[in-house]
Amino acid sequence: MINVGVLGATGAVGQRFVELLADHPWFNLSMLAASERSAGQPYGKIVNWRLDTPFPEKIAKLKVTPISPKAMKDIDLVFSALPADIASDVENEFADAGIAVCSNASSHRMDPSVPLVIPEVNPDHLGLIDVQRDSGRDGFIVTNPNCSTIMMVTALAPLSKFKFTDVRVATMQAISGAGFAGVAAMAIYDNVIPYIGQEEEKMETETLKIMGTLKGNTVANAKFNVSASCHRVAVIDGHTMAVWVDIKEPVEKLRNAFRDYKPPIKGLPTQPEESVHFFDEEKDRPQPRLDRMRGKGMTVSVGRLRPGVRFVAMGHNTIRGAAGASVLNAELITKKKYL
Amino acid sequence: MINVGVLGATGAVGQRFVELLADHPWFNLSMLAASERSAGQPYGKIVNWRLDTPFPEKIAKLKVTPISPKAMKDIDLVFSALPADIASDVENEFADAGIAVCSNASSHRMDPSVPLVIPEVNPDHLGLIDVQRDSGRDGFIVTNPNCSTIMMVTALAPLSKFKFTDVRVATMQAISGAGFAGVAAMAIYDNVIPYIGQEEEKMETETLKIMGTLKGNTVANAKFNVSASCHRVAVIDGHTMAVWVDIKEPVEKLRNAFRDYKPPIKGLPTQPEESVHFFDEEKDRPQPRLDRMRGKGMTVSVGRLRPGVRFVAMGHNTIRGAAGASVLNAELITKKKYL
Amino acid sequence: MINVGVLGATGAVGQRFVELLADHPWFNLSMLAASERSAGQPYGKIVNWRLDTPFPEKIAKLKVTPISPKAMKDIDLVFSALPADIASDVENEFADAGIAVCSNASSHRMDPSVPLVIPEVNPDHLGLIDVQRDSGRDGFIVTNPNCSTIMMVTALAPLSKFKFTDVRVATMQAISGAGFAGVAAMAIYDNVIPYIGQEEEKMETETLKIMGTLKGNTVANAKFNVSASCHRVAVIDGHTMAVWVDIKEPVEKLRNAFRDYKPPIKGLPTQPEESVHFFDEEKDRPQPRLDRMRGKGMTVSVGRLRPGVRFVAMGHNTIRGAAGASVLNAELITKKKYL
Amino acid sequence: MINVGVLGATGAVGQRFVELLADHPWFNLSMLAASERSAGQPYGKIVNWRLDTPFPEKIAKLKVTPISPKAMKDIDLVFSALPADIASDVENEFADAGIAVCSNASSHRMDPSVPLVIPEVNPDHLGLIDVQRDSGRDGFIVTNPNCSTIMMVTALAPLSKFKFTDVRVATMQAISGAGFAGVAAMAIYDNVIPYIGQEEEKMETETLKIMGTLKGNTVANAKFNVSASCHRVAVIDGHTMAVWVDIKEPVEKLRNAFRDYKPPIKGLPTQPEESVHFFDEEKDRPQPRLDRMRGKGMTVSVGRLRPGVRFVAMGHNTIRGAAGASVLNAELITKKKYL
Repeated sequence: MINVGVLGATGAVGQRFVELLADHPWFNLSMLAASERSAGQPYGKIVNWRLDTPFPEKIAKLKVTPISPKAMKDIDLVFSALPADIASDVENEFADAGIAVCSNASSHRMDPSVPLVIPEVNPDHLGLIDVQRDSGRDGFIVTNPNCSTIMMVTALAPLSKFKFTDVRVATMQAISGAGFAGVAAMAIYDNVIPYIGQEEEKMETETLKIMGTLKGNTVANAKFNVSASCHRVAVIDGHTMAVWVDIKEPVEKLRNAFRDYKPPIKGLPTQPEESVHFFDEEKDRPQPRLDRMRGKGMTVSVGRLRPGVRFVAMGHNTIRGAAGASVLNAELITKKKYL
Repeated sequence: MINVGVLGATGAVGQRFVELLADHPWFNLSMLAASERSAGQPYGKIVNWRLDTPFPEKIAKLKVTPISPKAMKDIDLVFSALPADIASDVENEFADAGIAVCSNASSHRMDPSVPLVIPEVNPDHLGLIDVQRDSGRDGFIVTNPNCSTIMMVTALAPLSKFKFTDVRVATMQAISGAGFAGVAAMAIYDNVIPYIGQEEEKMETETLKIMGTLKGNTVANAKFNVSASCHRVAVIDGHTMAVWVDIKEPVEKLRNAFRDYKPPIKGLPTQPEESVHFFDEEKDRPQPRLDRMRGKGMTVSVGRLRPGVRFVAMGHNTIRGAAGASVLNAELITKKKYL
Repeated sequence: MINVGVLGATGAVGQRFVELLADHPWFNLSMLAASERSAGQPYGKIVNWRLDTPFPEKIAKLKVTPISPKAMKDIDLVFSALPADIASDVENEFADAGIAVCSNASSHRMDPSVPLVIPEVNPDHLGLIDVQRDSGRDGFIVTNPNCSTIMMVTALAPLSKFKFTDVRVATMQAISGAGFAGVAAMAIYDNVIPYIGQEEEKMETETLKIMGTLKGNTVANAKFNVSASCHRVAVIDGHTMAVWVDIKEPVEKLRNAFRDYKPPIKGLPTQPEESVHFFDEEKDRPQPRLDRMRGKGMTVSVGRLRPGVRFVAMGHNTIRGAAGASVLNAELITKKKYL
Repeated sequence: MINVGVLGATGAVGQRFVELLADHPWFNLSMLAASERSAGQPYGKIVNWRLDTPFPEKIAKLKVTPISPKAMKDIDLVFSALPADIASDVENEFADAGIAVCSNASSHRMDPSVPLVIPEVNPDHLGLIDVQRDSGRDGFIVTNPNCSTIMMVTALAPLSKFKFTDVRVATMQAISGAGFAGVAAMAIYDNVIPYIGQEEEKMETETLKIMGTLKGNTVANAKFNVSASCHRVAVIDGHTMAVWVDIKEPVEKLRNAFRDYKPPIKGLPTQPEESVHFFDEEKDRPQPRLDRMRGKGMTVSVGRLRPGVRFVAMGHNTIRGAAGASVLNAELITKKKYL
C-alpha cells in the first residue's frame, strides 16, 4: 500500500478525492491537508460533507494537517485539489521535497516538462517525469486536463486514427464544476450562462498537448484546431457537449471505431469496464442524470453519431473530469513504477 | 380593424396568440377556435391559463367555435397554432375558403408556393401569395419558421452580406417549446436531453428557404450548409444557441455589421425597437432568463462574437419563435396590402 | 429462496422493485408482469430504464408475462406496483389464486381485513392475514401506506409512547411520486403546486389505521387527529415534511426518545441500520438531496426538533415510501412464516 | 413630487426599489446611495441589473452617492435596502438628520417607538411617528415586516375579526429572499433546505406587533401564538405557505370573510386592486410562478381554504414582501401627511 494525501480536502473536488480513496486497493489515505484554521482538527468535524454518498466514517478521525511538505510523514504521493492561484507554488514545493503530485489544478498543465495525461489517451507522456527528475527534483508533478477537455478528448480517442483538422465543441456544463458555492442559484435557475472563465482557452490548448506526440524531452502539439463555446446549464453533475469533427470518412467507419474501441491500458482499479460507452441505437442519449454514474462516474458516454461528423459526449465532471482523473493517473504512475 | 381568429386557442402557443392579440392596434380578436368538446363555451371557462401575465378579461366571454371555416363570420385572417398533423388539411380548407392563414405549424412551410417568412429577413417572399392566388384559391397561407430557426436566421441577418458556406449550431432549447405537457419534469430536471424530434432537420432545411432568393414563382434555396445539434435544457422560455459561421472577414467587420444593423422593414406594431440586440461588451450575455423579454419577447439577442466565427444567439421561443412571429407576418401582410 | 414476481414492472415504482429484488438474498425475482402489448418480450427490450443505477443485466432476458395468476408458475409472492384503478380486482385475483400479494397500491389499504403495515411500527397487524385466510382465500394481500404517510408515521414511531391528540403536517413532495410522466416540467419548474389529489385524505386516514391497535379480528383506529397540507416541489426524489404534534412533555424528553429509538423488529435484509436517523445538532437537516439515500434509501431522517412540538422529517419516496416498503413487508411476512 | 432616495440601491431589494420608483406618480427618485467604491459613478455603470424587466434608462446617469445624510440634498424620504448589520446605525443617522426612513431592514422593526406597518392591516400604528418626534428627532423611521410575515399577516387580515389562539405556518420560500448570491445553486437544486436563519423568530414576534393594538405611546402585542417552520425551495420569486389557524367558526363563514374582504385603506398608487386575492374554486392555487405577479406583485393570494382551519397563502417576496411594502408605507405616510 502506498501512503497518499489530499491537498485541499474539504472542497467539492477534495471531497470526491476522499470518497474515491477511502477504500482504495493500492492507496492508503493517511493525510488530509486543508487551510491553516482547520489544521489539527479531525476531518469529520470540519468537513461539510456535501456528497450524496455516505461519509466514509473511517476517515472521520484523521487529523487535518497544514498544506506543507513538512507536515507529511511517510507520504509518497499527494493529490492536489487546490485552487489554481495557490497550486502553482505549493505543488512545486511538494515535488521538490520528493513527493509525487497528481494535480487537478490548472497551474502546471501547460508546463513543457509536466505530463498532461489521460491514461487511455497518452500514457506515454508520463515520460516527461524523467525530464523533471533530470532537472534535479526528487518528486514530480503529473496533471490531468480540465474537466470538459477530458470528456471531449476521451470521446475523440476512438477516432484518433482518422484525419481531421477542425474540432468544434459546444458544452453544457454542470454547476458542480464551479465548486460548492461557485454558482448562485439566482444566476443559473431557469437560465443558461453562455460563458465560463478560461474554459474555452483550456479546451483549445490542453487538447493539442494531450493529443500531441512525445518526442525526446518535449511534446509536439497535435496539428488541428479546436474552437469551443462553453455554457453553464442547470445540471448538478455531468458535462454534456456537442462535438463536430471534420473527418471525411463515412460515418459507418466511425461507428465501428466507437464499437470496437479498446483503450491502450487496462487493469487500473479506477478504470471502468468501458472507458467510452457508445450509444449506438438510442436516439436521445447520453443524458447527464441517467448516464453520469456509468462506470462509477468514470465512463465517458458518446451518442448521436451523425454525418457532419457530429456526436454528443457526456461524463461526470467531478469524478472522471477531476478527482477520478487524478486517481487514475496515480494508478498509472504506480503501475509504470514511477514511484 | 381587421377581424382575426385563432385556431387552437387553448395550448401553449394559442395562449400566446391570445395574449398578443387581445389589445392589438390593427387586429380585432373576435374568434377563438378549439376542439369540438370546447365549442360553444366561453373561452374563460375552458382555458387553463398558464401564462404569468394576467388573463385578458375582455376575451373571457368570447364563445369558442369549432375549427372550421364555416364557423367563421366576418373573419379575414386566422392564426394557426394547430399541431402539425391536423394543420395540413385544416389550413388548406381555410385558405380555400378565402381566408388568410398565418401559421406557426410546420405542415406547409416547405411547400413551394407557401412563403416562409421572417419580416426582417425575407419580406419579399410574400410574393408567393400571388402564386397561391393564381392557382385559383381565394385565401392563402403564410408560415413562419420553426422557433430555433427563427432565432438563428434573425441573428444571421446582419451577416448576410458576407460570404460563408457552413453554419454549425448547437441549441439549448426551453421546455415550453414542447407545449405545456410536452416534457415531463422527471425527464428534464437536473438533465439535458440531447435530442428533439425533427428539430435539426427543420433548422437545416428551413434556413435555406428563408435565406434563399425569390425568382419568378419560386424560391431558390441559399447555397450553404447548416449542421445542427439540438438539445433540451431546464429553461422555461428562451432558446439559446452557439453558432459557428465560416466567414473569413475579420471579426471587427462583423462586429460593425451587428452594431449598424437596421432591418429592411419598420413600422409594424409587434416589431421591437431592436430586432437584433447586440451585446458588444458584456462577456456573459445573452441569458434566457434575463434577456428573453427584451422587446416584449420579440428581440433576438446576440453576444460573445469571437473569431471562429462564433457567437451566441437567444430569443423567446413562444413569442418571437412562434405566436409573435405569426403576428408579425400578419402585420407585414396587412401593410403590404395582401388582404 | 422464494420465487417472486412484480406486477407493473415497467413504471417508476416497478423499476424500483426490480432494482431492489435483482440481488435479494431471500427472494428470487423470476417473473415480471406488464401490459399485454409487452408480454412475451424480454424485459430489457421493453423497459425504458429511468433510474440512475445501472440496469441489472441478469434480468434483461426475463420474458415479460401478462398480469394474470395463470401466467405465474411456481411464484409464491408478487409485488404490486399497479395503478390503483386496476389493482383492486387484480390483487384479489392473485390472492384468491393462493399467492401472497405485497401491494404498494392504495386500493385495499383501508379494507378491514387487509394489514396496512410498516414493519417498524405495527408488525403485529400481520395478524389480519389469518382473517383473510379464514374467509377461505389461499393467498392474502398485505399493503404498505402511501409514501408521505410512511415518512410521517415512521418519524412519529419514537414518540408513540407520549400522549397527543393532534398532528399537523405540511409536505413538500418530490415529483417522482407522481410517476415518470406524472408532473409536467412546465407545471413544477420555478413553482410549488399546493395540491396533490387524495394525498391529504390518505395521510389523515391511513395514519390512524397503522397506529391503531389490533384487537381480535380488527384494527381499532388510533384516537388522534391528523390535518395535512400537501404540496409538490421541484425535487426529484425525497418527501420532506414539517410536522407539529401536541405532546406536552419537555422537548428534551422527545430528544432522548429519538436518540434512543430502537425499532421492535430487526434482521430484515432491506431494513437499514437506522430506521430513523436523528439529526440532533445540525440545524439545516434533513435535506432530500443529501439525505434521501441514507440507509440505501430506507432510512427516514428527522431533524430540527423544537418546542411546539415541531420537527422536519424526510425520506426517499420511491424506495422507503413505495417499493422498499413492500419489500420490507415481504421480508417480515417471510420471517414470521406466513408464506 | 417628493424627492426620494434609495440606500443600498444595487442589491436584490435595491433594484426592486429602483424599478418601483422610476416612474412613481408621487415620488421623484433623485438619489441612489451605495457603497463607497461605487460613489461618484453613474448608476447604470455600476449596477449589475438582474431583474427581467428592462433597466429604467432614465436612472442610468444618476450619480451614485455615499450612504450618508450629508450626501443628501433636498431629499425628504429614503428607502432602506441595507443589510441589517449596518442598517441600525445608518437609519438612525438619517432620521436624526430630519429625513423620513422607510426601511425594509429588520434592525428597528421591534423598537417600541418604530411603527411596523402593513397599510392594509395596521395603518394607525403610524401614530408611533409622533413618539419618535416627541423624543426630539426631526425625521423618523417606519419599517415593514419580514417578507414571510407580510404574506401571512396580509392573508390573515380578512380573518382578524374571528377569535383564535394558535397560528401554525410552514413556509416554502423563494431563493431571491436571500439576495442575488445568498443561496448557492449546489445547495438548493433538487433540494429543500429546512432552515432559514432567524426567519421563524421573525414570523413569531413581528406578527404579534403588527396585529397588536396601539394604545397611547405603545403597541400592545396581539394575544395569540405563532409557531413557524421555514423552508427554502427551488423557486425564484414567491413565498408559499401552509397556514393553520384555530378558528372555531364554520369554514363557510371564513370563506365569506375572504370573499367580502375590503382593506381599510385605498387610493395608494402601489396598492393593488385586490390586496388579497381569494381562489375560491380552483383546487391547486395559488402557485408562485403563475400568481406572484398578480397586482404587479403586490397582491397576496390565498387558496385551498379547508376545515382545520387550513389555507395556502402566497405572495411575491421582493415586491409585496420587501421593496413594494416599503413604497406602500411611504405612500401611506404621504397620504396621512406625516412628511
